[in-house]
Amino acid sequence: MHDFRSDNVAGAAPEVVSALATASIGSASPYGADPLTARVTERLSAIFETNVAVFPVATGTAANALALSALVPAYGAVYCHDDAHIMVDECGAPEFYTGGAKLVPLPGANGKLTPAAVTRAITRAGVGVVHKVQPAALSLTQATEAGTLYTPAEVEALVEAAHSNGVAVHMDGARFANAVARLGCAPADITWRAGVDVLTLGGTKGGCLAAEAVVFFNPAMAEDFGFARKRGGHLVSKTRFLSAQLDAWLTDDLWLRLARHANAMADRLAAGLRDRPGVEIAYPVEANELFVRLPETTITALETAGFQFYRWDDALVRLVTAFDTPAAAVDAFLEIVAASQEKA
Amino acid sequence: MHDFRSDNVAGAAPEVVSALATASIGSASPYGADPLTARVTERLSAIFETNVAVFPVATGTAANALALSALVPAYGAVYCHDDAHIMVDECGAPEFYTGGAKLVPLPGANGKLTPAAVTRAITRAGVGVVHKVQPAALSLTQATEAGTLYTPAEVEALVEAAHSNGVAVHMDGARFANAVARLGCAPADITWRAGVDVLTLGGTKGGCLAAEAVVFFNPAMAEDFGFARKRGGHLVSKTRFLSAQLDAWLTDDLWLRLARHANAMADRLAAGLRDRPGVEIAYPVEANELFVRLPETTITALETAGFQFYRWDDALVRLVTAFDTPAAAVDAFLEIVAASQEKA
Amino acid sequence: MHDFRSDNVAGAAPEVVSALATASIGSASPYGADPLTARVTERLSAIFETNVAVFPVATGTAANALALSALVPAYGAVYCHDDAHIMVDECGAPEFYTGGAKLVPLPGANGKLTPAAVTRAITRAGVGVVHKVQPAALSLTQATEAGTLYTPAEVEALVEAAHSNGVAVHMDGARFANAVARLGCAPADITWRAGVDVLTLGGTKGGCLAAEAVVFFNPAMAEDFGFARKRGGHLVSKTRFLSAQLDAWLTDDLWLRLARHANAMADRLAAGLRDRPGVEIAYPVEANELFVRLPETTITALETAGFQFYRWDDALVRLVTAFDTPAAAVDAFLEIVAASQEKA
Amino acid sequence: MHDFRSDNVAGAAPEVVSALATASIGSASPYGADPLTARVTERLSAIFETNVAVFPVATGTAANALALSALVPAYGAVYCHDDAHIMVDECGAPEFYTGGAKLVPLPGANGKLTPAAVTRAITRAGVGVVHKVQPAALSLTQATEAGTLYTPAEVEALVEAAHSNGVAVHMDGARFANAVARLGCAPADITWRAGVDVLTLGGTKGGCLAAEAVVFFNPAMAEDFGFARKRGGHLVSKTRFLSAQLDAWLTDDLWLRLARHANAMADRLAAGLRDRPGVEIAYPVEANELFVRLPETTITALETAGFQFYRWDDALVRLVTAFDTPAAAVDAFLEIVAASQEKA
Repeated sequence: MHDFRSDNVAGAAPEVVSALATASIGSASPYGADPLTARVTERLSAIFETNVAVFPVATGTAANALALSALVPAYGAVYCHDDAHIMVDECGAPEFYTGGAKLVPLPGANGKLTPAAVTRAITRAGVGVVHKVQPAALSLTQATEAGTLYTPAEVEALVEAAHSNGVAVHMDGARFANAVARLGCAPADITWRAGVDVLTLGGTKGGCLAAEAVVFFNPAMAEDFGFARKRGGHLVSKTRFLSAQLDAWLTDDLWLRLARHANAMADRLAAGLRDRPGVEIAYPVEANELFVRLPETTITALETAGFQFYRWDDALVRLVTAFDTPAAAVDAFLEIVAASQEKA
Repeated sequence: MHDFRSDNVAGAAPEVVSALATASIGSASPYGADPLTARVTERLSAIFETNVAVFPVATGTAANALALSALVPAYGAVYCHDDAHIMVDECGAPEFYTGGAKLVPLPGANGKLTPAAVTRAITRAGVGVVHKVQPAALSLTQATEAGTLYTPAEVEALVEAAHSNGVAVHMDGARFANAVARLGCAPADITWRAGVDVLTLGGTKGGCLAAEAVVFFNPAMAEDFGFARKRGGHLVSKTRFLSAQLDAWLTDDLWLRLARHANAMADRLAAGLRDRPGVEIAYPVEANELFVRLPETTITALETAGFQFYRWDDALVRLVTAFDTPAAAVDAFLEIVAASQEKA
Repeated sequence: MHDFRSDNVAGAAPEVVSALATASIGSASPYGADPLTARVTERLSAIFETNVAVFPVATGTAANALALSALVPAYGAVYCHDDAHIMVDECGAPEFYTGGAKLVPLPGANGKLTPAAVTRAITRAGVGVVHKVQPAALSLTQATEAGTLYTPAEVEALVEAAHSNGVAVHMDGARFANAVARLGCAPADITWRAGVDVLTLGGTKGGCLAAEAVVFFNPAMAEDFGFARKRGGHLVSKTRFLSAQLDAWLTDDLWLRLARHANAMADRLAAGLRDRPGVEIAYPVEANELFVRLPETTITALETAGFQFYRWDDALVRLVTAFDTPAAAVDAFLEIVAASQEKA
Repeated sequence: MHDFRSDNVAGAAPEVVSALATASIGSASPYGADPLTARVTERLSAIFETNVAVFPVATGTAANALALSALVPAYGAVYCHDDAHIMVDECGAPEFYTGGAKLVPLPGANGKLTPAAVTRAITRAGVGVVHKVQPAALSLTQATEAGTLYTPAEVEALVEAAHSNGVAVHMDGARFANAVARLGCAPADITWRAGVDVLTLGGTKGGCLAAEAVVFFNPAMAEDFGFARKRGGHLVSKTRFLSAQLDAWLTDDLWLRLARHANAMADRLAAGLRDRPGVEIAYPVEANELFVRLPETTITALETAGFQFYRWDDALVRLVTAFDTPAAAVDAFLEIVAASQEKA
């Protein structure tokens, strides 16, 4: 039975695997001085409609922590949502890479920050006061940890709250593809056109084996990044093997096609669950994650049937779909739910 | 023409690529809780004839820096060779991961440390003196940066110089396979049986795409390692894709077969160069690297012919062979050398 | 008019200054190997009724951050009150000294943590989960930032919540003297007898020029501390000049006598303010700090009269008394308050 | 008998102690917002004939490490003499404060660096190569650890070697007063006029209790320094007590008068030792330190007589004079030397 625990339990897309095989033959310059890496930069510059500086790395935690380290001094504060991955799931990697900056968690409904909360936090921070960590970065997650999305206008308003106070903006885009696929907007609309300074674009959850890209919309900000990446041990010597993944993933909209499938599977789950008695979907389903309260008997029935998922909090269950989630698995899941309710 | 710049310009072995393709299908637990990762630990425990704790990561720099961070406090000193990769080629990654420990370079002929130099350094370090960084680790490189090897007895003597002073021993094994292949010893003989505490076993240069393993012979030393790895952004979410590489590479002695080929190509180069007039091989050729002084006309002829290699220092040229270096490329190289000398 | 902004606006006690003058003559071994430093350890061992390891430093921020660094790995979590000095007033010094540990703020009425809040935070932290920072230390402030106190029983219950989960306990004692003076207990009762592992004992606010002591009740925990202190630049070369201050301050209960005066002045302020219309004392007055809501006209009248104090939050004013606060200054303050109200 | 181990075994100058006593009365703004601190900046601006940014701290190690952290990124290299205090006597404090930068020791006769050595190191460093730490700072010690001096022209030439390669220059001036007193030059001549960017000016060894000043000649470089100092725990809350020391020490040339005495006592020692049989003065005596090879019998006789000094290396003895070294102590020392030789 299917594993809905996370999109990182998924395998890798055949196109990506095939590109790796092709890239595995013959010599190439190491450390990113290869043609595939150059091509990834070109592709991303085209996709984002601006010249970007691109740094492939192997993990999302590295991408986030390194990106933040480019924006934040050791005495800086990073504002993020209470539930942000950088806050709760990276074992302090951002603190490590920034030399001990402070992450300041902010509340927000549906996993989303509000400009008011950001403004309030910054204005109370004690700018210029030597005893206080100094506002330095705002980190947005798109799609959020709650499976919701910021619209372009929402991103823009959040950036404005940050930039007007001299605070840079990072976007954790581990599921950026899901966001773009759903919003139907240009990738630029929710990044640099809305003012985002640096994006960590996640390929791994979207169909790569292990490939993320730190994307700077203002290449000047990336001046020291190469050294930071090397020093963190994240300059892969045969970088072409990261780039081959990203290149294939970004070709012919594969990244968006895979994301659309994942989103569609989440929708299918949501549609099948929405009006069931005793079932409550906790947040709007806007990407490929579903948080849902289920009756205990239903949870047990699903587990007995072999489905895997995380219990987030008591009755709250998280279901994540991926590029390779079969519709049949969703349907089988829904059947168990239905059956468990008929019995009850 | 062939690229002899480094073994990281090589591609990847077909067996490894094929294993990745196989592993790419279907779900698996993330973060190393998958069967392939378990199998790598089993394989390495068998290969090393003892239970080891294994942590796959994507780069050698990460493997080295993380391994050292498990041995060394921030106020510690790490003794290594003047030319050690951790000293000169990692942009301070060991300093970063240890919280600012000090690398103390020691001289040594043919890229090799001597017990006397190690003992002298430790005894002059000021043990217990609060103003001095404290001796904490010795890092050996096997094969060395000069393409030479430590025999089991040499490793043992160096470890003794360290351990008798309470100093732990790390081995940078980016080219460990080449060493084992050449020495014909058991892997244990140059590691834990000789007293080495932790090995960074390099797969990338030996035929993987990007896969290294930190191998602890004393698992108690690895207690905090999982947190350090995560915090460094080196816990790959789909870890199976690192493990699939290592698993294939370690199966049926593939790692040693590939290393033997690389070593043989270095021998072939050395044999063809050794008695040439004006040619001087700087160090014993014991692994897959050759440092050779060539007449300037010869260097120019080779470059003109399209061969790639690094000039280490004026007339000193480094040639590195790999698992996929064709014998024909070696022969073509030697022909150019011969031709350039006939002309002169 | 008087400056009630903080007890660090005060000068230094004559006994302490005099001891410095005496100590300034002649030679002494540097770096703490002098007789005065030995005597401070003796005095503190007597005062605490147990053998303590003592490390004098010049600032409270250093004392706190270094003490925490002895308890907490870089991947550790430190639990503290929302308003703790280490959380809000040290510009990330604890993060710096611990290599980037995470401070986890907990709420609590009257500036005090509760065992329930501590237990809840630890049990939800994800012990052993590699993605989560690991519970490592609880930091209590005594007297608290709200000018309140933990009783011995309260300290004991908090320590139990920590220790039963393998979490060490630090006490920020910048105003420890005020706490002991008020509680009338043995210093041991609110420290090691209640389970506290390490105390930062503040001399500066209590009448020294610049002298704090990190006091380990379990000297084994201090093993690396000397190196950490040196490395942080906090090993004062002429350490006798820190020790001379502490020695004088700890002689004949001077530290308690000075604290009693400060406390009495806070009481005098509280007594004069308590039943005034429109005046509200925010927290119990248990040490030498008073948080009070005053009518805006009263605040203006006080400022016009030349009194200095901090506005904490709108109408909330903080008044801090010190060892040298004259009773007359308190009375003058209260007269302005009274006069401003008669006018209104 | 006298203690010649170091100038940090000395007490404090009466003028400095007296200033502390005066400063101890009454209130003052904390954290450096007091009149004495402002006056120190004025005095130093006058002494250096330019507007300087001044940050008092309590230790030389902190002053050095913090100053370097303002010049050097974590991936930077700091060039210094083999024997520099920052290299061998600070337990890695510069590494700690810079986030793990690498100190690169360079040889040089008489404790002095040469422009050629600096240039050679920088040009071989691999500027722009991501695998290499990047040249960032040159640290000069004035007076040097060998008790020698750089002339203004020598400083200028060294600075040129650094600046022409984009490398900033720090001067460790723990014994800067001794240098100025001897050279008879303007303080500006061996600092900013010669191009030095930041000086750590040592008061402690020269007659203060514990007071050093980080002096930026280009205040723009000090932009983040206040945060770094706070974060390191080096912002003393009652900063006036550091400033009172420095203010008194800098008044009416006291700093130079005290240094002249120390220098004269070193000269007196040198004069008495110079032509003795079996005695060899290792380096030119240009400040207040003397390195001298003595016959073992003489060393024993001196120790028996109760004199204290460090054996630097076998027969090499270091003698340090201070502001309070009595001429009689020097003469008594010389008498023992003479007597021990007559016996022999």
